[in-house]
Amino acid sequence: MKEKVKYRKYWGLAAFLAATAVAVPAIAEEANVADTVIHLAYSIDTFYFLMSGALVMWMAAGFSMLEAGLVRGKNTVEILTKNVSLYSIACIMYMAVGYNIMYGTGANGVIPGLSFFLGPDHTVDEVLKSGGETYYSSLSDFFFQVVFVATAMSIVSGAVAERMKLWTFLTFAVVMTGFIYPVQGYWKWGGGFLDGLGFLDFAGSGVVHLCGASAALAAVLLLGARKGKYVKGQIKAIPGANLPMATLGTFILWLGWFGFNGGSELKISNIEEANAVSMIFVNTNTAAAGGLVAALLLSRAWFGKADLTMVLNGALAGLVAITAEPLTPTPLVATLVGVVGGLLVVFAIIFIDKAKIDDPVGAISVHGVCGIWGLLAVAFTNPEGSLIAQLTGIGVIFAWCFGTSIITWFILKTVMGIRVSEEEELEGVDVAECGLAAYPEFTKE
Amino acid sequence: MKEKVKYRKYWGLAAFLAATAVAVPAIAEEANVADTVIHLAYSIDTFYFLMSGALVMWMAAGFSMLEAGLVRGKNTVEILTKNVSLYSIACIMYMAVGYNIMYGTGANGVIPGLSFFLGPDHTVDEVLKSGGETYYSSLSDFFFQVVFVATAMSIVSGAVAERMKLWTFLTFAVVMTGFIYPVQGYWKWGGGFLDGLGFLDFAGSGVVHLCGASAALAAVLLLGARKGKYVKGQIKAIPGANLPMATLGTFILWLGWFGFNGGSELKISNIEEANAVSMIFVNTNTAAAGGLVAALLLSRAWFGKADLTMVLNGALAGLVAITAEPLTPTPLVATLVGVVGGLLVVFAIIFIDKAKIDDPVGAISVHGVCGIWGLLAVAFTNPEGSLIAQLTGIGVIFAWCFGTSIITWFILKTVMGIRVSEEEELEGVDVAECGLAAYPEFTKE
Amino acid sequence: MKEKVKYRKYWGLAAFLAATAVAVPAIAEEANVADTVIHLAYSIDTFYFLMSGALVMWMAAGFSMLEAGLVRGKNTVEILTKNVSLYSIACIMYMAVGYNIMYGTGANGVIPGLSFFLGPDHTVDEVLKSGGETYYSSLSDFFFQVVFVATAMSIVSGAVAERMKLWTFLTFAVVMTGFIYPVQGYWKWGGGFLDGLGFLDFAGSGVVHLCGASAALAAVLLLGARKGKYVKGQIKAIPGANLPMATLGTFILWLGWFGFNGGSELKISNIEEANAVSMIFVNTNTAAAGGLVAALLLSRAWFGKADLTMVLNGALAGLVAITAEPLTPTPLVATLVGVVGGLLVVFAIIFIDKAKIDDPVGAISVHGVCGIWGLLAVAFTNPEGSLIAQLTGIGVIFAWCFGTSIITWFILKTVMGIRVSEEEELEGVDVAECGLAAYPEFTKE
Repeated sequence: MKEKVKYRKYWGLAAFLAATAVAVPAIAEEANVADTVIHLAYSIDTFYFLMSGALVMWMAAGFSMLEAGLVRGKNTVEILTKNVSLYSIACIMYMAVGYNIMYGTGANGVIPGLSFFLGPDHTVDEVLKSGGETYYSSLSDFFFQVVFVATAMSIVSGAVAERMKLWTFLTFAVVMTGFIYPVQGYWKWGGGFLDGLGFLDFAGSGVVHLCGASAALAAVLLLGARKGKYVKGQIKAIPGANLPMATLGTFILWLGWFGFNGGSELKISNIEEANAVSMIFVNTNTAAAGGLVAALLLSRAWFGKADLTMVLNGALAGLVAITAEPLTPTPLVATLVGVVGGLLVVFAIIFIDKAKIDDPVGAISVHGVCGIWGLLAVAFTNPEGSLIAQLTGIGVIFAWCFGTSIITWFILKTVMGIRVSEEEELEGVDVAECGLAAYPEFTKE
Repeated sequence: MKEKVKYRKYWGLAAFLAATAVAVPAIAEEANVADTVIHLAYSIDTFYFLMSGALVMWMAAGFSMLEAGLVRGKNTVEILTKNVSLYSIACIMYMAVGYNIMYGTGANGVIPGLSFFLGPDHTVDEVLKSGGETYYSSLSDFFFQVVFVATAMSIVSGAVAERMKLWTFLTFAVVMTGFIYPVQGYWKWGGGFLDGLGFLDFAGSGVVHLCGASAALAAVLLLGARKGKYVKGQIKAIPGANLPMATLGTFILWLGWFGFNGGSELKISNIEEANAVSMIFVNTNTAAAGGLVAALLLSRAWFGKADLTMVLNGALAGLVAITAEPLTPTPLVATLVGVVGGLLVVFAIIFIDKAKIDDPVGAISVHGVCGIWGLLAVAFTNPEGSLIAQLTGIGVIFAWCFGTSIITWFILKTVMGIRVSEEEELEGVDVAECGLAAYPEFTKE
Repeated sequence: MKEKVKYRKYWGLAAFLAATAVAVPAIAEEANVADTVIHLAYSIDTFYFLMSGALVMWMAAGFSMLEAGLVRGKNTVEILTKNVSLYSIACIMYMAVGYNIMYGTGANGVIPGLSFFLGPDHTVDEVLKSGGETYYSSLSDFFFQVVFVATAMSIVSGAVAERMKLWTFLTFAVVMTGFIYPVQGYWKWGGGFLDGLGFLDFAGSGVVHLCGASAALAAVLLLGARKGKYVKGQIKAIPGANLPMATLGTFILWLGWFGFNGGSELKISNIEEANAVSMIFVNTNTAAAGGLVAALLLSRAWFGKADLTMVLNGALAGLVAITAEPLTPTPLVATLVGVVGGLLVVFAIIFIDKAKIDDPVGAISVHGVCGIWGLLAVAFTNPEGSLIAQLTGIGVIFAWCFGTSIITWFILKTVMGIRVSEEEELEGVDVAECGLAAYPEFTKE
């Protein structure tokens, strides 16, 4: 590590200082300092991108802990395995093909381009000559983007917990991260037709959260409810095994969301952009706080108790809702966007449960319902927002993600089977799929 | 997200490069590059502020895990609910009113100003014309400050664990984060009379930690000890349910403290400041290490065992102690400040327990006793420190926070009640307040 | 905190702006802006170093959680105590002497220099006159380096879990972090003879991971296996008590590794360096993903189950393997380096277990075997790599770390004893060494 200092030269500044000492013509030095300043700005924006990406990567841990805390002990190892594996699959598939589909040169805004693996980064010359158009490392962009794909896929694992076959799930992850997600990502962030229509989605209430929730809904409909969940018209609560773990997961997600939304500004290296990123941090935080408090008060008023799982979902609801537009609202308005999300998520969880759609962690409510709410809110919080464009975007994303997912799930069901056997479900999928117990000393009968 | 690139122009550099190419008069370009450099510096300081704030926000997770690990299983959901809710309440109250009280225009250094919500951020013009006075986003400042309030309030939840009513606690959180904390914060960091007296408190051994501990002490005195803690003159140890969780919480706090102390330097964008922030990181880390090792050796010598809870509190004691002045001491002196903190906290926990003040997690010892130690140490480690000013500051902060808190707690006790019923305490507050069990499969009888 | 704004002046820019306004000769201002630019670059590189260091510090939490999750409940408090204590000891010893051994002025590339504690940081003058040679705070460098030492020592604690005496372990930590690690660190990163031979080790597959694993192997050989592990020719699996905790630990390590490898580039403040750091982030991430997927598929094929502990070790194997050279490979090649690591670690764990070397968490396989693989891979992925130099480096590091460790362990065994009594081992080391239970409510018989 240390060795490097010896081999590398300091780029231009030394030369510049030497030059000024002998007073060569002024124009030359100015160009030199100006170049150095471009170097610094590129460095700041890249550094900011990498830190944002690291925070979003950390969300993978958040989903894992949240979901592991909300399932029963006998299904915990399997959901952990799903989460760590889907993250890895997402990273490999997006590198292999997904990133190129999403940000490649699509023909017409509908059909994306196709190419493989990652190209070289920007050269110094390219950056200096770009007049500011090229201002951060393309690999830092890839790193930031890839952790988003994993987020979309993480949403699915919670909804199908405790009964889906591990390998069917992982096969779906290959399709989702390499194909389903990138295509609709291309339509919006890749400059495709949704972007052209004026559909606004700052950091992915639709492209990431609604997308994941749509795939999750398709899976749950094909998969059915857990045994014992809906018995003789009764809805049985199935409590999670480890609520501190679920709380930790929520905090991790909350922290990671600063990278998720803050990084999506894509630039921090001047006064306006630094202000914008600051506003996004403040709004992201306060929307989560608003969502949490709203869910806390509603669950107290409705159930008479401060239901911690609802409270946590309230915070996540606020985060999902503000994601479509964390920049233009004032902090007070952002809080209200979160409050509505926090109220909605409680109603949605109850309603979806009554509809006998069994979603053990509330993922469809948090990411789907509140994702839609966030996208609609843009029409009111961003002057450039249009309700029609937002509705179109919601419809297109849902139709694509739900449609392709249900076809994929159906094929997988036919070919591999989608659900573990009744016996395995009763015993817990941990033993069946992973051969291990999550808490062998705590839960043994 | 990607879309933005299309709409935004790169600020001035393109123009500058074009200009140099045609060799317009030199002075113009210099001003242009100089402006760009101000943009970059503003961006760096804002970015550093936001990362520091994110690290401090992460401390909310640390307090939650620490406290959840140190209480019994039957009171775990409730303390988690308290922690996530107080963080959210702090964010909303500080935005609504607290920040303006603390940093508004107070009349005379004693009575703070009053206004509501957040104003607009600095304009580019304002920054460029300020001659360096305005050098970071005011919203990034708010974000950094708001996570400090939450820290102060988090200290209270641990001390009152396992017996205080949830809703009484949350109502107090509204008063504490909107009023009690901001007023004394104004006296010091808002430029009030304590600041004028030469009282030094770099990152809040007093303003944050002693403040929180004073409010906690007031609560515990009114609340009384947990049932079964002091029986027939005997002190009964009540072990925490999940020590790995408590250890994780300590690590989270340690990590977050780099933001807490490092960010309080408020600037990193030149050589001296970058050096200062580096010194603060090193000193913060080594004080924690010193405190941990001291508590480890003392607990071994005293009790014959390496008591992990004491060891963890030793690290936190070192962190609290160095917070009042992490910049001026050498790393060796910082280690010693931590060592004294680590020894003190063990004595304090034993002494406070003997005095039958029941503080389940040792919060009063860690944040109160070691906060005072840290403030006193400034008189010796900072040449500008004055023992009289430090003692005055300690007295004022304690008197204000303890006084207003005990009045508030007393009113709440009268109006809402402060303590759960004996039956609820026996059964655990989780079921009574939240209707959930933290570990339904592990602790069932 | 806020107070500072009042006392500090903005470094030069104000002066510069004033100067341009009155149009003093151009050369003066250029020097001024050029100086400011050097300030900014220094600030960026220092900030990046501190963030990287904070991420690596976080790895201490990762090792703690990983190891705490993989041991039995009765030995959990002790391993937590070991982990928090070794981190603190590492910080103090490296400050007191280790850093100076490693980066001091050794006589001849073999025998390092000896001095104590940390000197002052770079002055502004020193930086401005260095022509770019001095470009970040030396204290930020110390902070980054010190967290590496702790990583090396953390590797040991896992391998000796569940049977080594606490105080013997901590005494070894003093020797390891103050002497054994720094000496071989000097040979490579301090510019010693290994560096001169052309041995390449970017971020420490050898200097950190193989070093730690060698010390661990020496300990395990002297210590022997846990009671009940190898009985009558049978190998008994001893499952860990808390797999979500182990998974969390792996995620923490994965996140921290971005700082570990990314920070080792030592510079980010220009276009080439920002690109390099981005490449390192991408490669570090994808190598982990590759290792994880490879271990997942192999364990499925071999054992018929998706063994989560193997899967987690697969990710760590990929991370260790890419650490020796995360910059020169393409992301695809980095993935393959990880894949080989992930396959190797499964074979190594099985093989080492068959050889009756009892390593409860697989640390020797992950850090030793995959550390060697990573070092060898450099010969193929870096054009400057030489197989002979790499083999020499591996041999020297192993010989030094294993040799000095086994001597140290042997002396400690003689003087203090190395292993707890059979009775204590049966009861669990938690009660014997720490007087506490990790999960008193979950595991009581």
